[in-house]
Amino acid sequence: MEYCFGVDIGGTTVKIGLFQTDGRIVDKWEIPTRVENKGEAILPDIAEALKKKMEEKGLDNSQVSGVGIGIPAPVDEEGVVQNTANLGWGYKEVKREMEALIGMSVAAGNDANVAALGEMWLGAGKGQKNMIMVTLGTGVGGGIIVNGQALAGAHGAGGEIGHLCVNPEETECCGCGKKGCLEQYASATGITRLAKKRLAADDKDSALRGKEVNAKEVFDALKAGDDVAEEIVEEFGAYLGHAMANLAVVADPSVIVIGGGVSKAGEILLGYIEKNFKEKAFFANKDTEFVLAKLGNDAGICGAARLILG
Amino acid sequence: MEYCFGVDIGGTTVKIGLFQTDGRIVDKWEIPTRVENKGEAILPDIAEALKKKMEEKGLDNSQVSGVGIGIPAPVDEEGVVQNTANLGWGYKEVKREMEALIGMSVAAGNDANVAALGEMWLGAGKGQKNMIMVTLGTGVGGGIIVNGQALAGAHGAGGEIGHLCVNPEETECCGCGKKGCLEQYASATGITRLAKKRLAADDKDSALRGKEVNAKEVFDALKAGDDVAEEIVEEFGAYLGHAMANLAVVADPSVIVIGGGVSKAGEILLGYIEKNFKEKAFFANKDTEFVLAKLGNDAGICGAARLILG
Repeated sequence: MEYCFGVDIGGTTVKIGLFQTDGRIVDKWEIPTRVENKGEAILPDIAEALKKKMEEKGLDNSQVSGVGIGIPAPVDEEGVVQNTANLGWGYKEVKREMEALIGMSVAAGNDANVAALGEMWLGAGKGQKNMIMVTLGTGVGGGIIVNGQALAGAHGAGGEIGHLCVNPEETECCGCGKKGCLEQYASATGITRLAKKRLAADDKDSALRGKEVNAKEVFDALKAGDDVAEEIVEEFGAYLGHAMANLAVVADPSVIVIGGGVSKAGEILLGYIEKNFKEKAFFANKDTEFVLAKLGNDAGICGAARLILG
Repeated sequence: MEYCFGVDIGGTTVKIGLFQTDGRIVDKWEIPTRVENKGEAILPDIAEALKKKMEEKGLDNSQVSGVGIGIPAPVDEEGVVQNTANLGWGYKEVKREMEALIGMSVAAGNDANVAALGEMWLGAGKGQKNMIMVTLGTGVGGGIIVNGQALAGAHGAGGEIGHLCVNPEETECCGCGKKGCLEQYASATGITRLAKKRLAADDKDSALRGKEVNAKEVFDALKAGDDVAEEIVEEFGAYLGHAMANLAVVADPSVIVIGGGVSKAGEILLGYIEKNFKEKAFFANKDTEFVLAKLGNDAGICGAARLILG
């Protein structure tokens, strides 16, 4: 077997990659995600796209190991989802349906877990077998790699790092209904929230005043030496460092990979997380390395391909 | 292969079990742990005990799958320990040394992780593949089972549940040097500490006054309807429930097993943990079941035997 496919289903587009089994990307492209009619066209559309690509490349089924799929929902070990927030699917046997459509073996996993697997295989966690990936986007997602495999758990809901409670005293609610979730402090939305609160607390001079503040503005101001921005990032780092210390004491990773839109702030971000992590970490975990994700939007297709290679 | 050995090395005694590979215990016994001279006799003593038992039972190496060993220290995937607090060992290649002594394949793991594996195989987690075991003893230990395997992590230090930080505001130090570790509230020592603090806070009437208070006294008083004891157990349950909710959101277990000396208080304990867990849990984890451990002191030998069966 020389090839495999990695498929990353999102709410707007489906990203697809054709890989050699050694990890080289042969081709990658996107198709729209047609969520109408309960998303009934999504899997047939993907199957058609894969068949076309095989025809174009002159490949037959005997040369392809199979298809890995990342899905924005919990996925159990049979490749079944119970519900999805933004694909239109209710209960769906993704693995079985896709195998029937394509005539090859299929593996499915949660998109955040799959992205972590991608970074382990071809990105910032290359060569590691125990890794945590945290994705700081609109929300906070994540994946935990244990001995080379993504921790999926009993319901495929493992690795929901964004809903670790890091502040039992919080009074505002997270989108999930709990209070004090990491996502309330470390997502792009969370950083904006911290910034607004800090700015409202007094009238200390800051470049952040007088505009619609967001996470990027905060990091830009930090880089320009703004004291208030530094206080905000310090608070962000305290919560995230605390959460990572608690995660490390149970998962004992060799490396923690930070990805997602917020991580575009660059290396400066890592210092604020790492400083707080080291203060809170159990002695066995003090040397855990922090690195930025490398694969960007390709992490999903890479990890999906890795999933089918086992 | 019909048989295997499970060995649980403690600071005072080594527990040994001869198992059929289907999980039946054929025989179990103990030998002293000779920690003098850097513990150099420990592995040879075990090898001799195993050989004697095989002779007694008329077994030869072809009938035995191997030897699993649980060790009170982090153990890496090569079966190497860097240091032990109470066996006298420094760096020791346990797997390699024991294989040379016994002429069979050997697997080694951390004792708490191995005990969790035992409860999954033959005890309270039977039939489960994703499980957390918490051992409430003098300290708080634990093991996390992911897809049927113990989470060992990069340094064999995975599953150190007792050192999850559950109270960032704590001012007293845990034995590990951090502040606010679960162990400071949920171990036998921790419960005693909570009790002393509560009793000192005011002079509300309680059966716990005027004696040397300990965890057992607290639970006995609770069962007798003592209000102050209930407040103490409520606080214990709040911290433990909070920690389990944070663990569940990342490990997504189907069941959480509570063991160790403190769990001898019985079923009444589970209610206080579960109530607080449900309040704090992520929606996908609300149905996680809480059960008492079943194997008691045999969990270690059972899990060690399971370890060698892969």
